[in-house]
Amino acid sequence: MSESILVINAGSSSIKFKLYRVEGADLAVLLSGHFSGIGSRPHLSAKDPEGAQLVDRAYGADEVRTASDAQNLAADWLRDNLHGARIIGIGHRVVHGGLAYSHPVRVDAEVLRTLESFIPLAPLHQLGNLDPIRVLMERRPDLPQVACFDTAFHRGHPDISDRFAVPEALYEEGVRRYGFHGLSYEYVSGALAGLVPDIAAGRLVICHLGSGASCCALKDGQSIETTMSFTALDGLPMGTRCGALDPGVILHLIEQRGMSAHDVGSLLYKESGLLGLSGISNDMRELHESSDPRAALAIRFFCRKVAQSIAALAVSVGGLDGLVFTAGIGENDPEIRRRVVDELGWMGLAIDTPANENGAPLISTDESRAAIFVIATDEERMIGLHTLRLLNAS
Amino acid sequence: MSESILVINAGSSSIKFKLYRVEGADLAVLLSGHFSGIGSRPHLSAKDPEGAQLVDRAYGADEVRTASDAQNLAADWLRDNLHGARIIGIGHRVVHGGLAYSHPVRVDAEVLRTLESFIPLAPLHQLGNLDPIRVLMERRPDLPQVACFDTAFHRGHPDISDRFAVPEALYEEGVRRYGFHGLSYEYVSGALAGLVPDIAAGRLVICHLGSGASCCALKDGQSIETTMSFTALDGLPMGTRCGALDPGVILHLIEQRGMSAHDVGSLLYKESGLLGLSGISNDMRELHESSDPRAALAIRFFCRKVAQSIAALAVSVGGLDGLVFTAGIGENDPEIRRRVVDELGWMGLAIDTPANENGAPLISTDESRAAIFVIATDEERMIGLHTLRLLNAS
Repeated sequence: MSESILVINAGSSSIKFKLYRVEGADLAVLLSGHFSGIGSRPHLSAKDPEGAQLVDRAYGADEVRTASDAQNLAADWLRDNLHGARIIGIGHRVVHGGLAYSHPVRVDAEVLRTLESFIPLAPLHQLGNLDPIRVLMERRPDLPQVACFDTAFHRGHPDISDRFAVPEALYEEGVRRYGFHGLSYEYVSGALAGLVPDIAAGRLVICHLGSGASCCALKDGQSIETTMSFTALDGLPMGTRCGALDPGVILHLIEQRGMSAHDVGSLLYKESGLLGLSGISNDMRELHESSDPRAALAIRFFCRKVAQSIAALAVSVGGLDGLVFTAGIGENDPEIRRRVVDELGWMGLAIDTPANENGAPLISTDESRAAIFVIATDEERMIGLHTLRLLNAS
Repeated sequence: MSESILVINAGSSSIKFKLYRVEGADLAVLLSGHFSGIGSRPHLSAKDPEGAQLVDRAYGADEVRTASDAQNLAADWLRDNLHGARIIGIGHRVVHGGLAYSHPVRVDAEVLRTLESFIPLAPLHQLGNLDPIRVLMERRPDLPQVACFDTAFHRGHPDISDRFAVPEALYEEGVRRYGFHGLSYEYVSGALAGLVPDIAAGRLVICHLGSGASCCALKDGQSIETTMSFTALDGLPMGTRCGALDPGVILHLIEQRGMSAHDVGSLLYKESGLLGLSGISNDMRELHESSDPRAALAIRFFCRKVAQSIAALAVSVGGLDGLVFTAGIGENDPEIRRRVVDELGWMGLAIDTPANENGAPLISTDESRAAIFVIATDEERMIGLHTLRLLNAS
């Protein structure tokens, strides 16, 4: 029987999972699955690495009322379809590791309680992340479960990158610039090191541009500063999230317009960003296809803010040797990449148009003052590798 | 009798005033006055341009209960001490011109009502700014009064510099990046044009660093983008104001910690910034003198954020030909200037140490990719000149 690692990336209404076969210190995908539509139109699907459908099954809404129901159904299906793979550990994506965790951790009852205490720091995500851990600890108390955090990669930030200009008491209580997308940055940084080790060890900015988006400055492969901060609302404009916003706007909406903090939160998380600016869509592909001037405005706004973030982050690492685009938009949208780099022409950055159109790993010209890359991220693989390393180390 | 212009810059607990003699299209200071301690320890002082004390008088707290009382007392004193100067117009600093005013405006009853409607946009400042206008319109209905706005210089911003990534309905209702310190930027930009017209017409960032602080990018002498936005809370950390802050922090303080929006506002306006970071002082001079590591942290934080703002603003104007420091810290603190420029060494900026220590207008080396200047701001003179021009034009 081949040893395998299961990776689970659970949100509030869906659970993604991947099964990997252990091959020494590396992992090979056995299957990728998705339980979607929890609470509305539940649906389980999974494919093998060649794309052949292994399951494609709809459930009644009353069969799958909770994320726990979905996790149990997915686990049942997996149990019956392992075909000789023996799961030796399960890795989970957990958005928030708070101040406690700067590395992945094996979860026991006490760790789980600690992770639950971080729910107020990421109410939209943390609850959904922890649910499958609880379900699988009950089903398989024998199996090691490992929590991998979006925040952990950033825990070594220098003091000024970890703070807001608020009273120190708030900092001590945990109001800090945690940063997110850490598993993505860690994966991409490692992949870049395999490609161009000298540049990966230099002054780097990675742009994780998806429906959630942030940029991260790295030096010697370590995260130095990132645009998301205390919550996943800060920094770049995103699909439906506002990104950076004058704190006075929130006070205005509450004090002058009588909105509740809850409604302001909904507005800033769900109705803002590209959707709010364009009034059309949170999806960059739809904005490209639209002839509405508001779609063009949203695209220009997005590119300007990405470029400004790259310039500001370059300050924190004292310049720029490499720039990397990753995630949905970063990997698949040559026009956005071109526009962002064009905004930084004054810094000596220059894109190679054919390479950029082809999405080649290296997309800058020889003359560009920083080398520019497109690298596909793989957060699930990073979680799987962390899980394997932790099992091997213990 | 010589014609003169009175300029009034009124805050919530003090009124500054300057009397200028009109000399053709220019102005010469006749006296500078200050009514301070309104509601606590009222005190009126004034000096002539050589620094000779013209009045230095304390009042009982019960004699000066309101800003109107103070304005009347200051006006009484002025009336009796004009020595032949004939006031032909009064210019007022008004923080917010809203969407209505992109230029100074002569105030009548209707304009005053419009300006009052902007009080919710700047509750801390606007009320204090308008009070003397009301008092002086009653005392001298014959005299033209001119409102000059901190926002007006920024009203021509390109669309993406004027917006947040929130739904368009909020933008239409006035939730915009107005920007402030416009009278300072306009004055400094004009002074630079007198010194080095080619650089003043290029790509410029001006850093207005005082107890309130912001940076502004200009091109061809026009404001393109600035760090303060909807309110004077955004952007750089200031003496007691937080500057940029994750919107999620405010929602957290209200929803998870049960603070009121009012208390959050007090925290962010009055207890944050350099004071919050250091726990020691809102005054940069005291931070320099302290050996507490938190003072050093606050200074490093401030310099990093100024440098990051300069780099981000350079994106909006496509590079940097000139950089100017102004206002209290900008004009008088060579160490802060040096540290900010050092953070931008990777952009090719280099400071001339002796020139910087002497506060010479030009403080960059010949090799620096952008010329760097120290220029004293003078918002009162700018208000006086606007008032004179408006009177001459009508």
